[in-house]
Amino acid sequence: MKGHRVTIKDIARKLNISPSTVSYALNNHPNINPNTKKAIKELAQELNYKPNKVALSLLQNESKIIGLLIPEIIHHFFSTVISGIEQIANKSGYHVMICQSNESYEREVENVQALLSSNIDGFIISMSKNTHKFDHFRNIEKIGVPIVFFDRPCEGVFADKVIVDDFEGAFQATKHLIESGCKHIIHLAGPQHLAIGEKRKDGYVEAHKHFNISIPEHYIQACDTYDQAYKLIPELIKEHPEVDGVFAVNDLTAMGSIKALRKLKKKIPGDVAVCGFTNSFISRMSYFELSSVDQKGFEMGQVAANLLLDRMKSRESYQPVTKVLKTKLLVRDSSKK
Amino acid sequence: MKGHRVTIKDIARKLNISPSTVSYALNNHPNINPNTKKAIKELAQELNYKPNKVALSLLQNESKIIGLLIPEIIHHFFSTVISGIEQIANKSGYHVMICQSNESYEREVENVQALLSSNIDGFIISMSKNTHKFDHFRNIEKIGVPIVFFDRPCEGVFADKVIVDDFEGAFQATKHLIESGCKHIIHLAGPQHLAIGEKRKDGYVEAHKHFNISIPEHYIQACDTYDQAYKLIPELIKEHPEVDGVFAVNDLTAMGSIKALRKLKKKIPGDVAVCGFTNSFISRMSYFELSSVDQKGFEMGQVAANLLLDRMKSRESYQPVTKVLKTKLLVRDSSKK
Repeated sequence: MKGHRVTIKDIARKLNISPSTVSYALNNHPNINPNTKKAIKELAQELNYKPNKVALSLLQNESKIIGLLIPEIIHHFFSTVISGIEQIANKSGYHVMICQSNESYEREVENVQALLSSNIDGFIISMSKNTHKFDHFRNIEKIGVPIVFFDRPCEGVFADKVIVDDFEGAFQATKHLIESGCKHIIHLAGPQHLAIGEKRKDGYVEAHKHFNISIPEHYIQACDTYDQAYKLIPELIKEHPEVDGVFAVNDLTAMGSIKALRKLKKKIPGDVAVCGFTNSFISRMSYFELSSVDQKGFEMGQVAANLLLDRMKSRESYQPVTKVLKTKLLVRDSSKK
Repeated sequence: MKGHRVTIKDIARKLNISPSTVSYALNNHPNINPNTKKAIKELAQELNYKPNKVALSLLQNESKIIGLLIPEIIHHFFSTVISGIEQIANKSGYHVMICQSNESYEREVENVQALLSSNIDGFIISMSKNTHKFDHFRNIEKIGVPIVFFDRPCEGVFADKVIVDDFEGAFQATKHLIESGCKHIIHLAGPQHLAIGEKRKDGYVEAHKHFNISIPEHYIQACDTYDQAYKLIPELIKEHPEVDGVFAVNDLTAMGSIKALRKLKKKIPGDVAVCGFTNSFISRMSYFELSSVDQKGFEMGQVAANLLLDRMKSRESYQPVTKVLKTKLLVRDSSKK
């Protein structure tokens, strides 16, 4: 059943002209005689010729494709960012191809290579949390393909960045929990080598300082997935039964905590108040709503795409910028006291 | 800052040999002198030459990339399917590039073209619900690139399909609601031109026949998104206050119903029991869990990827197959009476 992909050569052979004439004609080059052009285009249509962008991009050196590298599609946050990116990119005739790293460094490196090999015009990247070496990003830089990082930028790579004010968001969330009456708030933290992990923890610490509350050891735990939280919370509550608040680095971790707390028959927010970070769709869609810090995913995607389009248009030298979006605390069922 | 992407021509120029010699050497062609090969490879490494798969794929006619077309990433179901596909594809050295149609026919057509132009080796597709013309799929078929459809297959295209037993799943879900005491079950249905929409509705109808319960007009409503359900449920309940059960075509629609019912101060499942379809992550992750029909997303992804790998290996003529996976009803908070 394998058909033959009609090529420029097939058309050239049938018309007894050179393949480059066919190529020029199909790309509307002014040097080609209008009648020849017409004949070529008609035959191309008749033979169901699809311009092979592989060949085309060698000619034009652009693919009209933006490569998007994200850690995990399961985080609704990323689907919101993708919507923002696509809205802007599609308007300018660009397509978005998405690859996920599944938080694997190796997969991320392979995805970079696969996308580069597809001759994409630019990258929008949120780094895997297990990425500690950055040569694959530096290679993109050397090749001259522009990158915009979002949410989890890579420091030390020449690229634009779009982030939120993680410190302020975490500060406000923790302050809200304290003001709601929580005296013993644990923080389920992200990796500290990522700015989002470090700054959200810093905001949590700063809010405690603000109220002169000391933070016991073990109140800050490395824990940033649904499954990890679901497993860790029962152990933590057993050791620290006084805990009455949870501030989680992202919504899925907060949801895992809620699930575990419910199993322990803890009332939420009566016994333990919970606040996440992201304001993903899941935080507001379910029967029982999660308080969260709005991370402006859609806007982040739009800003990232606009930055990238600018960089792709003008390949002049530039000074990379970092755009910092404001967050907003949204108080819902899980922390309304 | 725009660097220069090192090409085969650059290497050829530096070594004063022909570009094709460089290309053959880098692809380990036996006709090239080992010393020449060594010199070329060393220079390629020194110059940070990345094999441009654009050029390479013209040579080898394979990109090692699988194109995945899905309607909406926001459905957790698709992220589960993607995980299943990637698990199988990555093992065989394939990468997965994902494009979403956002349920738009036009976007779907453009995505097919973009992926074809990237010279991908095969397609895994779940059709947009607004797709009523199928020439873009038939073009893939003509070109000879294999397709595997999943979840929402396109009839009339020569391709393998992986689906679940939608009829049986819907029958079991509705039977469960009836056996739990529901006497007035509405069905929030998917588009009837898609098999998943039609068969899930048929299962709902059949379960009623099984118990000799007639279905009033207006009990079957075209409604298959979170937002639609959130808007429709208050109107429906106002007109039909007797309604005590909701069977939704997918989990997000069920979640939208639950959210609306809560706003109406209806007890779930006491006043109204709710059951979805998919068993997506969201159905079991939140504080209040949703009953649902397990659609085996991960397995579906694995089966689809294995089928595609087989088709890509052997391009001989074949008779397309349709794999039907069994579903499983999972009873949770929203319908436990």
